[in-house]
Amino acid sequence: MDWAAASADPQYRAAVVDLLGALAYGELAAFERLAEDAKLAPTMADKAELAKMASAEFHHFERLRDRLAEIGEEPTQAMEPFVAAYDGFHKQTAPSDWLEGLVKAYVGDSIASDFYREVAARLDSDTRALVLAVLDDTGHGGFAVEKVRAAIDADPRVGGRLALWARRLMGEALSQSQRVVADRDALSTMLVGGVADGFDLAEVGRMFSRITEAHTKRMAALGLAA
Amino acid sequence: MDWAAASADPQYRAAVVDLLGALAYGELAAFERLAEDAKLAPTMADKAELAKMASAEFHHFERLRDRLAEIGEEPTQAMEPFVAAYDGFHKQTAPSDWLEGLVKAYVGDSIASDFYREVAARLDSDTRALVLAVLDDTGHGGFAVEKVRAAIDADPRVGGRLALWARRLMGEALSQSQRVVADRDALSTMLVGGVADGFDLAEVGRMFSRITEAHTKRMAALGLAA
Repeated sequence: MDWAAASADPQYRAAVVDLLGALAYGELAAFERLAEDAKLAPTMADKAELAKMASAEFHHFERLRDRLAEIGEEPTQAMEPFVAAYDGFHKQTAPSDWLEGLVKAYVGDSIASDFYREVAARLDSDTRALVLAVLDDTGHGGFAVEKVRAAIDADPRVGGRLALWARRLMGEALSQSQRVVADRDALSTMLVGGVADGFDLAEVGRMFSRITEAHTKRMAALGLAA
Repeated sequence: MDWAAASADPQYRAAVVDLLGALAYGELAAFERLAEDAKLAPTMADKAELAKMASAEFHHFERLRDRLAEIGEEPTQAMEPFVAAYDGFHKQTAPSDWLEGLVKAYVGDSIASDFYREVAARLDSDTRALVLAVLDDTGHGGFAVEKVRAAIDADPRVGGRLALWARRLMGEALSQSQRVVADRDALSTMLVGGVADGFDLAEVGRMFSRITEAHTKRMAALGLAA
């Protein structure tokens, strides 16, 4: 089903506007934080890597914002309901050094990929194409893996500290997401399997579980057994 | 003359490496500062405008860095001599509010355009094509003009404060540039008319005068008679 057909249902339409608003502000906030965290970089090449991620997030923001305008929505208004959650997340998880910044960039990028993939399946073909296009350009966080590994090899105590940090990132992300789920009925309903199936809190829980599990596996692979 | 022919002269080659290093670090530093200043934006649309400029600067950085690598230079090493000047400039000119940030974005963007245009004429055809391509994608600062005008209309005292601010920006830019000119002989010699003509401090002074004059005219047009 394409957007023209799917958006005839006002609840579906509201859900997609919420989704695009949430993703757009998420990308804009990520841009800001990555650009800020780039200042912690020990070398200019490292700084350029994080700046590159930031710039990619900005282009994602542009695409999502433009799509909102295209379907006749005011982008700022669509983003507004999600500002507190993202700003809260970033405020609670300001990295205190470069390694924490790298782990955050990698974790954030990976969780975003997982979420985009989960949600794509539930969308009309036009919205799905946009979400997959943005997803396709994600994954710039991989450069962090090698550097974090090298730091742990050099000093194994670093691993313990970063493992705690990764848990805190995930905990804060979950707590902000649950706040959004509680507030935004249309979005939540769509996330758990389409409007027709009605709202099922257990299914939201399962989606969060899948994303958390993937995160835990990635952290273990990185040497951050939590 | 193209790069292959022109770069046979080691002094010209050194000058271009200096130039590309200076421009590359300037763009990277501008990215960082604009992304930082975007936090001062009163609305999300304003924030997005400044973030867009930042992202454009990052892409300029990438092109200049890639060109350095292409001609066999280590980009970090080429940028290093200019870090102190740019960092010093930005440290001395951190905007204290959104309007100062806007004026800085506009002034910085305009001076960069003027400088790129001045320098392009003195370059071999390959380097010139790169500099003009980057220049062509500059000019994102124009959005600031309208907003600064509206703020002065609403409260004319704002104009006085911002006029002083614009003077401080130009003063600091000149003082850092003069430091670079004094330190980097090959670059300075090229800037004033090509290697063949020898070094002429008066001509450097005239270039600075032209750029300062254009700046003063722009500020007056903006309602910032200094």
